[in-house]
Amino acid sequence: MSACIFCKILKKEIPSQILFENENVFAIRDIQPQSKEHVLIIPKKHYSTLHEAESYGELENLSKFWLSAALEVSKQLKIDFSGYRLVINQGENGGQTVFHLHLHLLGGERLSGKFV
Amino acid sequence: MSACIFCKILKKEIPSQILFENENVFAIRDIQPQSKEHVLIIPKKHYSTLHEAESYGELENLSKFWLSAALEVSKQLKIDFSGYRLVINQGENGGQTVFHLHLHLLGGERLSGKFV
Repeated sequence: MSACIFCKILKKEIPSQILFENENVFAIRDIQPQSKEHVLIIPKKHYSTLHEAESYGELENLSKFWLSAALEVSKQLKIDFSGYRLVINQGENGGQTVFHLHLHLLGGERLSGKFV
Repeated sequence: MSACIFCKILKKEIPSQILFENENVFAIRDIQPQSKEHVLIIPKKHYSTLHEAESYGELENLSKFWLSAALEVSKQLKIDFSGYRLVINQGENGGQTVFHLHLHLLGGERLSGKFV
């Protein structure tokens, strides 16, 4: 049994509102939002980091559906024209907290020009 | 003649040190770095936004080589294990300043957990 919180959410072992889902990814709201809209776009397959996905030969496949899913969510939230920020925190220096790859989508308001 | 600064750098109309280049992307240092390492990974084809790339049916192709190029640059900078942050600022609310798509790679030090 996986101890990963995102895997548990995907398996419905932890209740969560799924904002968007397709065969490859699902999206949920960040529980500590940094902006009015703050959604996590999460590949269903568990890879801790980009480099792990790459080591399995999965990076290209992952990339293909990940960004397009982010754009779909931006449309669903109606922030595709106003704009948003996409962030992947990778490893310790990057501030990664959950070691199951995820992409942050932040928007709904004007974000600062600083992102570190 | 394009007025885009990234297109001018690519055409060598503006001098710049190219850190990484392949057939699809090139990478340069940000002139206003927000962390010890701050590199821009820029698709050679000019698309102002992700949604423009999508409207040309180019988003999937773009995604495939963009993330893998970012990983290559992280290895070149020797920050692939220590970690880093990848950021795409999209549109006005996202804080996009140059309207030629680019991915920020930030690292070389511990980044804060805040990215807005």
